[in-house]
Amino acid sequence: MPRTIRIAAAQVGAVHLNDTRQNTLQRLICLLEEASSKGAQVVLFPECTFTTFFPRHFISDEAELESFFEHGDIMTADNTRGLFDKAKELSIDICVGFAEATNDGEHYNTCVYYHAKTGSLLSKYRKVHLPGDVEPFEDPEATNQLEKRYFKPGDLGFKAFRVPDLTDATPERGEPIFGMMICNDRRWAEAWRCLGLQGIEVVFCGYNTAGFAPHLWGTSTDQDPKEADAMALFHHKLVMQAHSYTNSCFSVSAARCGWDDGKYNLIAGSTIVGPDGKIIAESATNEDEIIITDCNLDDCRAGKTRTFNFGRHRRTEHYSIITLQAGVVEPPRLSLGSLDGTEGAGIWKA
Amino acid sequence: MPRTIRIAAAQVGAVHLNDTRQNTLQRLICLLEEASSKGAQVVLFPECTFTTFFPRHFISDEAELESFFEHGDIMTADNTRGLFDKAKELSIDICVGFAEATNDGEHYNTCVYYHAKTGSLLSKYRKVHLPGDVEPFEDPEATNQLEKRYFKPGDLGFKAFRVPDLTDATPERGEPIFGMMICNDRRWAEAWRCLGLQGIEVVFCGYNTAGFAPHLWGTSTDQDPKEADAMALFHHKLVMQAHSYTNSCFSVSAARCGWDDGKYNLIAGSTIVGPDGKIIAESATNEDEIIITDCNLDDCRAGKTRTFNFGRHRRTEHYSIITLQAGVVEPPRLSLGSLDGTEGAGIWKA
Repeated sequence: MPRTIRIAAAQVGAVHLNDTRQNTLQRLICLLEEASSKGAQVVLFPECTFTTFFPRHFISDEAELESFFEHGDIMTADNTRGLFDKAKELSIDICVGFAEATNDGEHYNTCVYYHAKTGSLLSKYRKVHLPGDVEPFEDPEATNQLEKRYFKPGDLGFKAFRVPDLTDATPERGEPIFGMMICNDRRWAEAWRCLGLQGIEVVFCGYNTAGFAPHLWGTSTDQDPKEADAMALFHHKLVMQAHSYTNSCFSVSAARCGWDDGKYNLIAGSTIVGPDGKIIAESATNEDEIIITDCNLDDCRAGKTRTFNFGRHRRTEHYSIITLQAGVVEPPRLSLGSLDGTEGAGIWKA
Repeated sequence: MPRTIRIAAAQVGAVHLNDTRQNTLQRLICLLEEASSKGAQVVLFPECTFTTFFPRHFISDEAELESFFEHGDIMTADNTRGLFDKAKELSIDICVGFAEATNDGEHYNTCVYYHAKTGSLLSKYRKVHLPGDVEPFEDPEATNQLEKRYFKPGDLGFKAFRVPDLTDATPERGEPIFGMMICNDRRWAEAWRCLGLQGIEVVFCGYNTAGFAPHLWGTSTDQDPKEADAMALFHHKLVMQAHSYTNSCFSVSAARCGWDDGKYNLIAGSTIVGPDGKIIAESATNEDEIIITDCNLDDCRAGKTRTFNFGRHRRTEHYSIITLQAGVVEPPRLSLGSLDGTEGAGIWKA
């Protein structure tokens, strides 16, 4: 019995700074309805789905900054519950990213997995690999990336979870094993491997990724816009494909894309990738768009039992540096006098 | 002052079971001379460079099996010293893979970095991720992969090393930082990250990788030969490109390729990849061939100081599973009765 699930990614086009939340929410609901009409069982929405990507702005007013965050229960709060209600009505699971303000005043870049049948959150993930900076650029024209300022690094780790009701739980394999990451996490093999070591079958990853961005990182404007866009898209697909392959899992990515406020360019490239690393479905626009495909989770077995059978092939005794140090420690520099192979010169001796 | 090095990969075409060692050695020397004529400073040779890829054969005769291994000092033994002498004569560093038999009777899949100017081995690596099986397939027509039978897993870990004399050691950066892996290692993000955490600038990786292989893994022959070849090549490039990008380093890969004995097909696809993950040089044949390019090691700095600045972005507190367990531990299966969110059901609670 094939364990096949129809999965969709809801790509969301430009969301401007002054777009009303109700307008944006209505667009998300429209996308969900379209996915439903195509038979989707699960739909992924992007990172920080409900507003423009505000970390590009330096916002010093506290009340203004808080207005981009979701407070209280995401399933029932005024600004967000429309999407969850619609998901319940349509009986579609959704995976949704949002800026989370906790009751005790912490802020995270978060996503949740909402299980429609029971109307409950099966899992929550808080972004671990926050890019960008704490301080804004001095150049007022620069595009900021202030995730390190506005969010705390996620404290929930990378937890895979089982999802009931999507497909028959065969005696051999049980319920599907899903996991979530957010945007920049997808570039980090550690995030994928933590999920891979839990038998992950589908990774969900929403993102906001800049293409051509004048002054981004404070650099000059001498980038070629088309080349900058193409390179950002190339890197996005490269990491989604390689990490799906090396962890023998499907992956789904959903972009917030387009030119926000006509000024800030985010790449599209929402994709669904198979466990062989090949792209199965891919967005064709940089606007609101549903991509959808059937994923037979048993296609993960070939990789998990053969080339990437972790238990047979991984040699953890040689990996300790990965958890023992965060940053780089270079080998000591050589001096010419040490090339004769004397002890401590860093030269291997037979 | 740019830290530019001219690096080559020496791809080696079919080597048959009955080819004489002197004939094969002469081909390697010809490749080295060609690389020299093109100005190469370092040349990478494939995995198990000096013989056919013998782990595809089930060899029960001990003396026959030993004949594929190198014994004693690789730089001076009869079967191999010609290459090292030529490297010294031409003043080119070489990175060479071979089947190593140690004085105390162990066997490893090994490579060394030979520093021509001092005539010494700067570093040695023994393959950690051995693919394949201990036992041969029952079907006598199956293509075996017996690395787990013939070799012991490497015991030297992933050690980056400095190489003198190739370029000016600028006060800012010091001598180039190189590292080695072998074939299947390139599919494992852990191998790359261990080197990345040592500031790696160039990864060298020789390989023997099967394309279309009737009966390989004991599976049926219903593969399409062209599709099987294309998929193997796709996976090879995908991992070289993604891992070079995510560790902000150059990588060089050299294939043993072609149809050994007219029967066993190994993919070509030798490449040199830049720290942006793009292929700079690539082989055009599946025969003996030199690919070569100039690599400015300072091109690694953009990635190492920004997107992949490990010290700023890595969160080792969430990676412990990577070293604590080798194999997969799946989340517990759900029972329908647990969906109400009761404790221990694996359901996240707000």
